[in-house]
Amino acid sequence: MASASLSEYPPVLSPEEEQYLLSNLKDWSIAHGLAVRPPPTFVSTSQDPSGVLASTAPVTLFPSLFPRTCFEDGLSLQTAYNELYAAIARDEEWLQGIVEELIEIDDFVGKLWQTHLAVKKEGYVQDVTLGLFRSDYMIHSDSASSASSPGLRQVEFNTIASSFGGLSSQVSALHQHLLAIDAYPSSATETIKKDALVRSKSTFSLAKGLAAAHKAYGQSRSGKPLCVLFVVQDPERNVFDQRHLEYVLLEGSGIRSFRIPFHRTLKDTKLDNEKTLLYTPPHSPSAVFEVTTVYFRAGYTPDDYPKEEDWDARLHLERSRAIKCPSILTHLAGCKKVQQVLATPHSPHLSRFVPDEETARRIQETFAPIYPLDDSDAGREARKLANDPTSAARYVLKPQREGGGNNVYRKAIPDFLKSLPETHWPAYILMEMIEPPPLRNSILRNGELQSGGVICELGVYGVCLWRNGSGEVSNGEVLQNWEAGYLLRTKGDQSEEGGVAAGFGAVDSCCLV
Amino acid sequence: MASASLSEYPPVLSPEEEQYLLSNLKDWSIAHGLAVRPPPTFVSTSQDPSGVLASTAPVTLFPSLFPRTCFEDGLSLQTAYNELYAAIARDEEWLQGIVEELIEIDDFVGKLWQTHLAVKKEGYVQDVTLGLFRSDYMIHSDSASSASSPGLRQVEFNTIASSFGGLSSQVSALHQHLLAIDAYPSSATETIKKDALVRSKSTFSLAKGLAAAHKAYGQSRSGKPLCVLFVVQDPERNVFDQRHLEYVLLEGSGIRSFRIPFHRTLKDTKLDNEKTLLYTPPHSPSAVFEVTTVYFRAGYTPDDYPKEEDWDARLHLERSRAIKCPSILTHLAGCKKVQQVLATPHSPHLSRFVPDEETARRIQETFAPIYPLDDSDAGREARKLANDPTSAARYVLKPQREGGGNNVYRKAIPDFLKSLPETHWPAYILMEMIEPPPLRNSILRNGELQSGGVICELGVYGVCLWRNGSGEVSNGEVLQNWEAGYLLRTKGDQSEEGGVAAGFGAVDSCCLV
Repeated sequence: MASASLSEYPPVLSPEEEQYLLSNLKDWSIAHGLAVRPPPTFVSTSQDPSGVLASTAPVTLFPSLFPRTCFEDGLSLQTAYNELYAAIARDEEWLQGIVEELIEIDDFVGKLWQTHLAVKKEGYVQDVTLGLFRSDYMIHSDSASSASSPGLRQVEFNTIASSFGGLSSQVSALHQHLLAIDAYPSSATETIKKDALVRSKSTFSLAKGLAAAHKAYGQSRSGKPLCVLFVVQDPERNVFDQRHLEYVLLEGSGIRSFRIPFHRTLKDTKLDNEKTLLYTPPHSPSAVFEVTTVYFRAGYTPDDYPKEEDWDARLHLERSRAIKCPSILTHLAGCKKVQQVLATPHSPHLSRFVPDEETARRIQETFAPIYPLDDSDAGREARKLANDPTSAARYVLKPQREGGGNNVYRKAIPDFLKSLPETHWPAYILMEMIEPPPLRNSILRNGELQSGGVICELGVYGVCLWRNGSGEVSNGEVLQNWEAGYLLRTKGDQSEEGGVAAGFGAVDSCCLV
Repeated sequence: MASASLSEYPPVLSPEEEQYLLSNLKDWSIAHGLAVRPPPTFVSTSQDPSGVLASTAPVTLFPSLFPRTCFEDGLSLQTAYNELYAAIARDEEWLQGIVEELIEIDDFVGKLWQTHLAVKKEGYVQDVTLGLFRSDYMIHSDSASSASSPGLRQVEFNTIASSFGGLSSQVSALHQHLLAIDAYPSSATETIKKDALVRSKSTFSLAKGLAAAHKAYGQSRSGKPLCVLFVVQDPERNVFDQRHLEYVLLEGSGIRSFRIPFHRTLKDTKLDNEKTLLYTPPHSPSAVFEVTTVYFRAGYTPDDYPKEEDWDARLHLERSRAIKCPSILTHLAGCKKVQQVLATPHSPHLSRFVPDEETARRIQETFAPIYPLDDSDAGREARKLANDPTSAARYVLKPQREGGGNNVYRKAIPDFLKSLPETHWPAYILMEMIEPPPLRNSILRNGELQSGGVICELGVYGVCLWRNGSGEVSNGEVLQNWEAGYLLRTKGDQSEEGGVAAGFGAVDSCCLV
């Protein structure tokens, strides 16, 4: 990635080239549902009360450069990662050890755990769990050593509501289309070429995962027709991403699905006396469906639980016979604390779940060193690193919970920790910053075009369907396991000179180099 | 269509049913490019200067009822209509007789004819013509005779820029999707059922027509790569309709196409000394393409020719070796005057072009009686009918030229004619009004939902590729000829009680009864 031509990537466009590329991009994206509902800052509710307007989803104009070996590593590791997280989710005792440390300080984790315990007490009636995972990586270039080749470093592993699978297939198709119509200038086509662009199969592959769970559920017990339930936020601007899965599920597998806002759960569903989950569509109260699979695209953030009854709703779904994507234990397996204990140097935990040494080594290589902020030896070392402005500059402080947006970076860490009681420190982990290679791109977002330095994050989707068995690692059985396509998400780097708005992402695709 | 259940069509929706149907309709439409760019009254240019917003195309919520026999009649007649209009376009002498009467009064027809004559003088170099036609019909129910079954009556025959083929496939798929997800209440599913809904294959079939012309053009003469040129208006809100054809042309047949605003014709194209049409994309001046086929989605209205050089542009394209869709003679064959002389009772013209008596009879049955307003016997009779308010109430007065929007209806005709010098009357034809059956539907347009009485127009697409031969009817050769799907376009009836805004159309699909 260091050759002269690559350092000039992406090419500078003449006004006519930019006009051709943009007009094709804007039309193709809407014609193919690479779209979002516009934010209220762009289109106010009063202007479009019925919500018929849509806009091109935030996208990059060019596919971003990505090292082929890293891309292939990420994809080839996904089934091992799927097995790892399925094994963690099955190991309640081990998870308990992880979670207990957080319960007192992270109310959200505590509530999830209590919900699990309540269901456990009366007995889980569904042994099968579905994971639609996404393992997120950045490229790490060790600037200290110019000889070392770039490698993948895991940012996080998503076990719930892994998004953008529906749009990712479309953006990779968009970039291929732009190449096919010569929208990329000939000076760039040594780099942007047919076999360098990778189509993501994520829409098809994730929908196939939902279909596999639906099938594994078996026959209807109530005699009612079967369906999959998408539990969603309301409103949802990223609705087309989810709808693409729904359409493929219906057209590819003939499986009905419904969208239910999370807050409507207790109104629109009930359990019969065998805990079969029954859904009554509000538009058709006489047509009851039996739910085979609950697909959570909500419920992953405390914001989704403003009322106590929202926790009743989560409990209600967890108690049911429907297959959950994911179960609460699987949701908890996605805690950053889990990532931290796996990635703490010399941790014994990885080998517990991944007995094969070579596989464990390959997974280990994708970990950035992660430290706890607790009273352990590693934790005490980490507290020193975090409180010293010089060493803190190489780290990021992350909360355990999901959702993003609350990270504290580099030199801001010491002051942030000073503002917190020390008893709350263990709610955070300290992670060595990944140093991505300098890249540039242009992003079209809400009609505004911004160019500059960018950071790319590769997400690899995985589908895993497993039986929990008795809860011990050695038990249980993986029924389905496949890599399910990829996402490239690109945002402005935080450099002052970069024109791309920092922190806001766009969907992107890989141009392998 | 007179049974009790049909008279209650479409069903009245509960608020929950309407919410379910609309949210699915709005998401599906954007996810599948059933979209338009919003009008400036909905989204101003200053709000979205780069034009990334799109909205659901105006659509009906329900597929409109349409008699199955009429639908089948229309589709089965299309290849005969294709042959008829190809034969007319080949018969320059006959067309001259028609056109000469209009030249003095319709400047647009005159200009088209002059352009043809100029090319004829130097000699046409391309013998092949492509027609992407659309024959538009309404259902006529003779209210005087309740026993007679409804029949098709032709409204017009479009020989240039037949639109909505790209959206029509999508709206028929939308209505099928809404049926598949039970968005139509069970009370309606005796009527709206799988085998009553007809998918339109228009996108695929029209693109196949362009591909056939492209192939018939043969090898490149210039050594440059070949392309199809979409000559378009600028701006074009209905751009997705056209883009869908472009995408199928590329993905289905591997054929490159470019959009060129009509006013850019002389800047971006040139003829070499063999009249080969060469296109230089503004974004890539070194990449010249040889144009096989000029597909006009502009140039059909005088508004597209604000300057004299726009006529130079039309002449330039007509002179070229590219296959025109359509040629100027084919464009002129679509004059309403042609429709009028064919449909004038006891006219000898139809049999001239359609020697087969049975076919001619079937075509004739779709004609509403049409009269000239000239000095012929039929014309003098028509002037009487048009100037008497009582008889005029059964007629519509239409200008000869394309485009629509300038019709004068019923009792308004006498006063309108009084305001015109009599010498201008022959620019119009008098047509018996078609009396469509009373229908109701709901239209979503720019986010507003309107329900009420509607009028439906069935358009049947046809693809025809032919050799002109020497210009006599008996010469020439039809190379390709197929029916290419359908369009149902629905607008508010003009009744005061109807809630649907009169005159503005929505795309629709057929629910056969």
